[in-house]
Amino acid sequence: MSEFALIRRYFAHLGAERADVALGVGDDCALLNIPAGQTLAVSLDTLVSGVHFFPDVAPEALGYKSLAVGLSDLAAMGADPAWATLALTLPAADETWLRAFAAGFGQLASAHGLQLIGGDTTRGPLSVSIQVHGLIPTGTAIRRSEARPGDAILVSGTLGDAGLALRHRLAAAPVASELQRRLDYPEPRVALGQRLRGIASAMIDLSDGLAADLGHLLAASGVGAELELAHLPLSPSVAAQVAATGDWSLPLASGDDYELCFCVPAPSLGNIASLAAELNVNLTQIGWIRAESGLTCRLPNGERLPTLPGGYDHFRTD
Amino acid sequence: MSEFALIRRYFAHLGAERADVALGVGDDCALLNIPAGQTLAVSLDTLVSGVHFFPDVAPEALGYKSLAVGLSDLAAMGADPAWATLALTLPAADETWLRAFAAGFGQLASAHGLQLIGGDTTRGPLSVSIQVHGLIPTGTAIRRSEARPGDAILVSGTLGDAGLALRHRLAAAPVASELQRRLDYPEPRVALGQRLRGIASAMIDLSDGLAADLGHLLAASGVGAELELAHLPLSPSVAAQVAATGDWSLPLASGDDYELCFCVPAPSLGNIASLAAELNVNLTQIGWIRAESGLTCRLPNGERLPTLPGGYDHFRTD
Repeated sequence: MSEFALIRRYFAHLGAERADVALGVGDDCALLNIPAGQTLAVSLDTLVSGVHFFPDVAPEALGYKSLAVGLSDLAAMGADPAWATLALTLPAADETWLRAFAAGFGQLASAHGLQLIGGDTTRGPLSVSIQVHGLIPTGTAIRRSEARPGDAILVSGTLGDAGLALRHRLAAAPVASELQRRLDYPEPRVALGQRLRGIASAMIDLSDGLAADLGHLLAASGVGAELELAHLPLSPSVAAQVAATGDWSLPLASGDDYELCFCVPAPSLGNIASLAAELNVNLTQIGWIRAESGLTCRLPNGERLPTLPGGYDHFRTD
Repeated sequence: MSEFALIRRYFAHLGAERADVALGVGDDCALLNIPAGQTLAVSLDTLVSGVHFFPDVAPEALGYKSLAVGLSDLAAMGADPAWATLALTLPAADETWLRAFAAGFGQLASAHGLQLIGGDTTRGPLSVSIQVHGLIPTGTAIRRSEARPGDAILVSGTLGDAGLALRHRLAAAPVASELQRRLDYPEPRVALGQRLRGIASAMIDLSDGLAADLGHLLAASGVGAELELAHLPLSPSVAAQVAATGDWSLPLASGDDYELCFCVPAPSLGNIASLAAELNVNLTQIGWIRAESGLTCRLPNGERLPTLPGGYDHFRTD
């Protein structure tokens, strides 16, 4: 099958059909009409075989996760998902693989009312680049740079599950299905991000580990933070691992959590419990913003964690 | 140097500084304000080492060409360039290489008033994905699908030069510097595309060869075409090659021309000569649209070219 036939068959119609798409897949550009009063939010991410995923990953999971990573970036600004473009580089055109990839992508796209509007398929080593596009009422985007001393720091969900799945896999140990699901099918916190407009002062999604990502937020805001490690929300498996080893690097420094880390000024903290209940998402306060720069982590015994584990950095750690 | 330091040093500020960028490089998403009455045009392209460029390509040329390919897509809709995102996958972080890549990208971006607003750097086999974003007064985009019988078919510049450079290089023969420039530094026809709003009925850029790309336009418009091969605009080198071999595949089927192919209804043809003079770009009528489907190429002797050479198709021809 030719490149063009492949594109037509699997990627011409994926996800929602949106009225604001004037022209979708099939011309030199896609054409989009942005409603008045809305700001466009965009994010481009690449996932490379052997770096971001195992070469034998299920194509359906890869299609899902490639989009989930982008949706998590939209969530971290408080944006409403709208459109995506997909650049897929493949060693060969395997129709079975493509069908599964498109199914995983399309399922998540439809769930979020997002339409695939264009992209590129090329031959080469397996990798996926996805750009997501979202809309935010102008002036309400939640940036990294607006955290202020005294703000509470919260995270959604639990931390370190995908990292534990990865550790088990790398050690050729069995991986519990719930952990595998956290690694392969992360749930982007889109609804939470939207609902935090007007509540959170600053936000970031956790893709490279809490310490590194929160570090970016602190640097952008020109502030520091104190975390209570005893308050980190951990699944039973991760909690057991930390208890057995005394090593906090799983919840602090493993990637692929795709939870939201956000700051809330004291007057707005009263909204959080009802929001958590309404969305059925755990929202946990793990610390607070301080004026003094740096990130201090308090161990459960009150002592300070002597060394902060680093986050994932493609060019530094490999 | 860490990934984040690399991004900051070479990609935080590339190209123009635009007032419509509410937030550029450095957060989870870039934020953009689209003026009222403008439609957004987007296109995502990937260039893979060993497929779209030689692994030893000069990084400055690669930075330039990666953006030129996208600008050519914007030109083909008649759009005004605005922003780009860049996903760069590299085997290692080589600062000299990155500086040259950024210089080539930045030079072309600045020339077109385009700002780099975000992206991703990852470790892996060398490839570049660039999404370009442009603006078009709503309702004036030039699509592939609106060519009508009787329209003249025109192309800009000359055809087959990049293809000839590639042939020489693959044969380890010397490449004339002008041909090499056509391959490495194609000039996207942005001003021409903009000026064809209201004049051209349909347009496409030539990336995969005239026959294939015009074929897409004809299929999208539900029409056919007749081309006079004697009218194809050829540089002396390509003309000599065609004369010597009787083989028309260089101007008909080699890729990377990045010229515009467009259709003009008879009443608007009078605008073309002055537009060509004003922009100092050769604009040549090479045929006309007909109702009957298919693409017929007339040889200079009046006979019909028996077999149409195919275009570049990543998954079919390799």
